[in-house]
Amino acid sequence: MFTPGPTPVPPEVLAAIGAPVVHHRSPDFRPVYERCLARLREVCRTESDVLLFTASGTGAFESAVVNLVTPGEPHLVVSAGSFGERWAAMTTAYGADVDHLRYAWGETPDAEDVRARLSAREAKAVWIVQSETSTGVVADVQALAAAAREAGALVVVDAVSSLGAVPCETDAWGLDVVVSGSQKALMTPPGLGIAAISEAAMERRGATPRFYFDWERTRTAQRSLDAPFTPAVSLVAGLDVALGLLLEEGLDAVFERHVRLGRAARAGVKAMGLELFSPDDDRSAVVTAVRVPEAAEIIAGVRDRFGITLAGGQGELKGKILRIGHIGWFDVFDVATALAAIELVAAELGVDVERGVAVTAALEAYEHSTVA
Amino acid sequence: MFTPGPTPVPPEVLAAIGAPVVHHRSPDFRPVYERCLARLREVCRTESDVLLFTASGTGAFESAVVNLVTPGEPHLVVSAGSFGERWAAMTTAYGADVDHLRYAWGETPDAEDVRARLSAREAKAVWIVQSETSTGVVADVQALAAAAREAGALVVVDAVSSLGAVPCETDAWGLDVVVSGSQKALMTPPGLGIAAISEAAMERRGATPRFYFDWERTRTAQRSLDAPFTPAVSLVAGLDVALGLLLEEGLDAVFERHVRLGRAARAGVKAMGLELFSPDDDRSAVVTAVRVPEAAEIIAGVRDRFGITLAGGQGELKGKILRIGHIGWFDVFDVATALAAIELVAAELGVDVERGVAVTAALEAYEHSTVA
Repeated sequence: MFTPGPTPVPPEVLAAIGAPVVHHRSPDFRPVYERCLARLREVCRTESDVLLFTASGTGAFESAVVNLVTPGEPHLVVSAGSFGERWAAMTTAYGADVDHLRYAWGETPDAEDVRARLSAREAKAVWIVQSETSTGVVADVQALAAAAREAGALVVVDAVSSLGAVPCETDAWGLDVVVSGSQKALMTPPGLGIAAISEAAMERRGATPRFYFDWERTRTAQRSLDAPFTPAVSLVAGLDVALGLLLEEGLDAVFERHVRLGRAARAGVKAMGLELFSPDDDRSAVVTAVRVPEAAEIIAGVRDRFGITLAGGQGELKGKILRIGHIGWFDVFDVATALAAIELVAAELGVDVERGVAVTAALEAYEHSTVA
Repeated sequence: MFTPGPTPVPPEVLAAIGAPVVHHRSPDFRPVYERCLARLREVCRTESDVLLFTASGTGAFESAVVNLVTPGEPHLVVSAGSFGERWAAMTTAYGADVDHLRYAWGETPDAEDVRARLSAREAKAVWIVQSETSTGVVADVQALAAAAREAGALVVVDAVSSLGAVPCETDAWGLDVVVSGSQKALMTPPGLGIAAISEAAMERRGATPRFYFDWERTRTAQRSLDAPFTPAVSLVAGLDVALGLLLEEGLDAVFERHVRLGRAARAGVKAMGLELFSPDDDRSAVVTAVRVPEAAEIIAGVRDRFGITLAGGQGELKGKILRIGHIGWFDVFDVATALAAIELVAAELGVDVERGVAVTAALEAYEHSTVA
């Protein structure tokens, strides 16, 4: 599976998930829950509470919307792909007065544009996607957040496919809300949504009715090692193990591995003569998108022949790109496998690709590179 | 684990959950999803769509609230325990004008009371708890629903701890919304919320903003075997296996087993001379509540000595009762185990219990009884 979420899950994590279920209020579960919450703070690099919801990443994102938006209030949503547009739709659905800074899919948001928008019209919060999974673009969240903070706006970051793959310095960059999900770089099956919440965000909560996704209710419960509603205990046990693996490898080492995996994927794609859709820079460490007219046939071919799952394009990119995810439990030989399969199937489909060079180029790029 | 949710999970289900993760839009997952949705309709005994949310049962219940409630509209909430009160709080939080038919914890709601309330004031929907897990009382949903329907109200049923344990005839009884969760009689870890929705309920949706729990979005996606947001694929795979086990045993046989488990638990409790809190009738097939001043000590004792997890009282029943859950993957020897442990620990605590009779009484009640 080479999709940008769900991603492959290490066997230690699967074993924890397949273990007999324990009760969420029992002494069997509380230490797991406590450790998992502490590890989440470490991975988010924050001293604030990280709330855990039984929900997909979209559910955790909805928690930000229902806790922060009061109908009629001005917000700035930055989008450059499928997920950014989902957040524009969601904030609008909850009555926010949305200024939508909308880039073409595949473009990289620019902090100067955010600054210009905010000087024209203030916003209670700026909504940013760190890794736009639909295009492979990783935004410069630090710069975007700085522009938002200068204007006094809260910063909400969709880090669903980026948390644990590329740096996301919640406290150091002044991010008020960081949303993620279990099924990407956190190497756990889908089902848990995550939201790190700053004190400033807690203080500026809005008037939208809420219950399941209410931050206060969840934070109060979590602080006494309880959960407001029955949590997905099996997934929490798995996430705890997965976070342990990440922290054992070391977050900086994990980030470096992802940078090198991205370099390897891009080197392989370029070596066989295919066109990169995602930017050819080191921030593109999550998913590598390739623009090729035969995308759908290649995806079907590698699936049927080799049982390899790639992702296609979403929305306006449907049928135009294929995406190789390399977040989470991946090493360079996984990337090599995907490249080799793409090469073979593309060649048989008559696509003009250079044979026999992609895997070598990928391994070279991975092995002989250092990350500053 | 003898708690009324999460409940023990059969090994076949754990194995499915611990299997490598597949992508939710791949041909590996779609047949599982399709079969799981069809089995859910069978277990709910409905021809309507059964929506699957990545959320706890409370999340699925919130879907009913945000899809049906328009602020200011009249609703009737029937409560007789912790969960009924949660739904009163939730409908109120979303602005419903709530008439709260509130019974003391442990009482059984009466259809005549519903009829009287609705003749005094109409309601868009009547909100009912089938199995009030906090007290062990199972309401007569068929009678309550009939009273609601006579008055033209929609019927919303919390069947979180009852679906798959006691009969819940969604279509035959005219239930508009039936909400449940994966972690009770459906023998799967927590993390999936379920909501069966009638056409009438779909047509009377209200004006509350919603996104993650929007019925239309989820129904449209499910009908094309997609999910609007990344589903908890591992839990869906497990639920599919668990529903297969239920349907293989046969729903009627499953219901009969639960009736006899309830009889066994009550016979054992009475034989050792303890006081039943839940009603001594055949509808009490989900959880058996026992009123005993030493409840907390007994619960701690059986946990420390034998690793057995019982549930205590919630809210105003805290410290006053203990609860033996027997929903899902249970047979009579499990009930016997719980009774034997309670007997031993209670006796050592100096509680006046008759020794050596509870297990025999339970087995006799189970074996030598038939269900009409």
